[in-house]
Amino acid sequence: MFATMGALGLAPTAQATSREAAFRAPQGSDFTLTGRGAAKVVIVGGGIAGLATAYELGKAGYDCTVLEARGRTGGRNFTVRSGDSTVDSYGNRQTARFSDGQYMNAGPGRIPQWMVTMDYCRELGVPLEVFTNTNANAYVFNEKAGMKAPVRYRTAKADVYGYVSELLAKATDSGALDKALTGEDQDRLMEFLKDFGDLGDKLSYDGSERRGFTVDPAAAGTPGVPLGAVPTASEVFASGVGRYFSFEFGYDQAMLMFQPVGGMDRIPVALTKAVGGQRIRTGAAVTEITDRADGVSVTYTHGGRTRTLDADYCVAALPPNILAKTPHNLGPAVQSALEACKPSSAGKIGLEYRSRWWERDHRIYGGITETDMDLAHIWYPSYGFHGERGLVIGYYNYDRQADAYAKLTPREREARAVAQGVKINGEKYRSELASSFSHHWRQTPYLEAAWHSMEGGPDAAVFAPLNKAAGRVYFAGDHLSHTDAWQHGAFTSARKAVTALHARVLAG
Amino acid sequence: MFATMGALGLAPTAQATSREAAFRAPQGSDFTLTGRGAAKVVIVGGGIAGLATAYELGKAGYDCTVLEARGRTGGRNFTVRSGDSTVDSYGNRQTARFSDGQYMNAGPGRIPQWMVTMDYCRELGVPLEVFTNTNANAYVFNEKAGMKAPVRYRTAKADVYGYVSELLAKATDSGALDKALTGEDQDRLMEFLKDFGDLGDKLSYDGSERRGFTVDPAAAGTPGVPLGAVPTASEVFASGVGRYFSFEFGYDQAMLMFQPVGGMDRIPVALTKAVGGQRIRTGAAVTEITDRADGVSVTYTHGGRTRTLDADYCVAALPPNILAKTPHNLGPAVQSALEACKPSSAGKIGLEYRSRWWERDHRIYGGITETDMDLAHIWYPSYGFHGERGLVIGYYNYDRQADAYAKLTPREREARAVAQGVKINGEKYRSELASSFSHHWRQTPYLEAAWHSMEGGPDAAVFAPLNKAAGRVYFAGDHLSHTDAWQHGAFTSARKAVTALHARVLAG
Repeated sequence: MFATMGALGLAPTAQATSREAAFRAPQGSDFTLTGRGAAKVVIVGGGIAGLATAYELGKAGYDCTVLEARGRTGGRNFTVRSGDSTVDSYGNRQTARFSDGQYMNAGPGRIPQWMVTMDYCRELGVPLEVFTNTNANAYVFNEKAGMKAPVRYRTAKADVYGYVSELLAKATDSGALDKALTGEDQDRLMEFLKDFGDLGDKLSYDGSERRGFTVDPAAAGTPGVPLGAVPTASEVFASGVGRYFSFEFGYDQAMLMFQPVGGMDRIPVALTKAVGGQRIRTGAAVTEITDRADGVSVTYTHGGRTRTLDADYCVAALPPNILAKTPHNLGPAVQSALEACKPSSAGKIGLEYRSRWWERDHRIYGGITETDMDLAHIWYPSYGFHGERGLVIGYYNYDRQADAYAKLTPREREARAVAQGVKINGEKYRSELASSFSHHWRQTPYLEAAWHSMEGGPDAAVFAPLNKAAGRVYFAGDHLSHTDAWQHGAFTSARKAVTALHARVLAG
Repeated sequence: MFATMGALGLAPTAQATSREAAFRAPQGSDFTLTGRGAAKVVIVGGGIAGLATAYELGKAGYDCTVLEARGRTGGRNFTVRSGDSTVDSYGNRQTARFSDGQYMNAGPGRIPQWMVTMDYCRELGVPLEVFTNTNANAYVFNEKAGMKAPVRYRTAKADVYGYVSELLAKATDSGALDKALTGEDQDRLMEFLKDFGDLGDKLSYDGSERRGFTVDPAAAGTPGVPLGAVPTASEVFASGVGRYFSFEFGYDQAMLMFQPVGGMDRIPVALTKAVGGQRIRTGAAVTEITDRADGVSVTYTHGGRTRTLDADYCVAALPPNILAKTPHNLGPAVQSALEACKPSSAGKIGLEYRSRWWERDHRIYGGITETDMDLAHIWYPSYGFHGERGLVIGYYNYDRQADAYAKLTPREREARAVAQGVKINGEKYRSELASSFSHHWRQTPYLEAAWHSMEGGPDAAVFAPLNKAAGRVYFAGDHLSHTDAWQHGAFTSARKAVTALHARVLAG
């Protein structure tokens, strides 16, 4: 009966083997007996893909130079701290006024256990801590669905699971599943449902202590007062609170998740150090890429002057929408492919508070509040628990919602985010606010995208020219992966380019 | 329609208000104008309840002395580090040989967000980090149910939720719910089920990427290979994997949970420091408690000599099963109540490994593997991610299972735990083992219980004599709370005793 269980259960070390076999970093010893040596490579773009390319090629002695248009490496991996300044494409200038120790990960903020980003953190010595992606005490608030007040995630789950269990248990009990399941299977299902839904004797959901308490259980004499006023099944389904549950089942979003201690940019900072500062030129905006039979020439501006760098190979690790606007001789198929990578919008606002009222008043230590409002998500911080101050992500939204916020001034963005968040978190969401900083990727010079929409996926025919070398130019970036918008995509795409380039050099 | 939603959604600050109003610490200024002063109090037992009693009374200047029979404070809050030694009631002597930085919380190991333990950590300056109570990548393995290999929690969830959704969706589709739900409610339910179960077009569960992958999605050309061999509904229900899901819905076990950085004993260490070492006598085993009209006399042995301490009041914060064996004059009703507190068994083993193979090979960064084996639970560590070594809790079991392990020698316990764990975690569970340390509370001198079974709860009539003063003697401990076995119970019970004692002193 359980023959298949063995197949679905992972043999303990099987997954590790397949994963680690997938990439072998170039080594200097690879050149022994080949009569060849490491080549000179220019890498356009100092984000995760570009830095990883330089880092991995560097292990085998390649002479890499990274050209980064912005003033810092990391690309969209950008951690905002006090004093950091930005100017967006609408001309909004902001300087963060956060307190010491407070930061906002404007780009990537979380790492799933299985992604290679974890391995790079280990290899580079970047300490990790848990990223609080879900929290039973955080809220769900669907204002548009008619909810008058937020409910805690734990309450929403108890109610939805309670009624789903009741409905299925009663259907089973009435014989509706007799054709689908044997009696024994039905018994096992019923046992599960009673526990899963915390059903009463009559297979009814009548509330549950899982919903929470208004007065917590404590010493003798204080058994606690469970949350009352259990809504009806109709009310629960109409509220739409269950629509967020599947988020935490996703292969890429399921807890546990992680973040570098001190900010996500500890990763590019460590990569930059490992690559070597002398190999990286920031403020170097590429103006032309010319592929030739015997090499590649990359022209860029730096400090107001135009320069050209010649190399054996180039890895184009800049955003495809930016490369599409850069003169090159890589051909019309490459250009069509680049133009088919459609830039997407996303934005975040960091709200620094003078007190951690969400911990003291709401007993919310991290996690995400989900809404159907235009702020989409509110992130409570995963660091600095019990500290004096703290930083909440007041919106993290995409597409039209992000574009709408981007069109506002930073002050207006803050006002709009706070006005919405007050409905969930109460008046301290406004009164305790110290300062804010907002960031929108579609409006960020030299990036102009949070991520890219790749119709049909990165292996669709239109993108084929980017998944191989165009002459001596290779392409890398998370858009050329099956985990778009994740650093894992940038890392694995870089590894793919590195592997192909290195094999070509070794083959001569 | 949503009139009740307001009631079930917490008004943002309502819960905080009810919680913080529940306890007001004594203050020296309370005595102003009363003509009275703080009393002398002897506290028997230096666990969390006893230390919290001394700490809170000390805020108002009470002259407290804590008598602790063991060599350290903290009671069951015991963090085992290298060099720590124990002798159990069977005569087994152990000395921990863990590496620097590795520790095992032999007693409490996790703190829910809502418990007052969090507030004490804030007040005492004990830094917190996330305790990884659940993890999608950890395993479920029901050997007795016939499973041949472990499945990951994420896989088990995908399969159970998939089939439950399919069954309810098809029942709904066939009209089985027409009497229970309106058409509109059914539509909403169907929308939820399709998402919750990741159902296909025909309302069938055919597997899901939520189950996991054998080859992870990566760069272009590597879309990933989802876990194959989806079991049938019958197989899934027979495996019993769903029985663990409700654990994480519990009010006391739902994530996010927390632990002190560096070990749970950072709490009693901080309390001990706050109370003042000069007020605490360790190695002081109480041999008699005598309540008199004008005070209390407590006799104890210390360094081989018998001493007596006289005070105005006593707070008996030792385990009730120990007090029941201690001569006292508190009367037969108190004695009956003490004897009705039935001690329970629990044990843990800490397995230190030379490598963190669970992270590298299994991609399990913390969390708990659930089994139907006699080891019950395996805890992967919530600290030291990516470090060289790590410490796994190889069993955490209760009752008869704990008693059975307790009867073995420490070496036999290790062998038995490892033999079981190898079936789940593979051969490195044996080959990478560096050392182990096991601890069983029922066999721990001066405690002799992991927690207590209180029939009818702490407010049952038989326990009434412990929930008020017996003359000048008050009682405190987690057993006298509605959160037995949690530090919250010890803290809130201590607060209750402190409040009653202080009110009496103030009233004269």
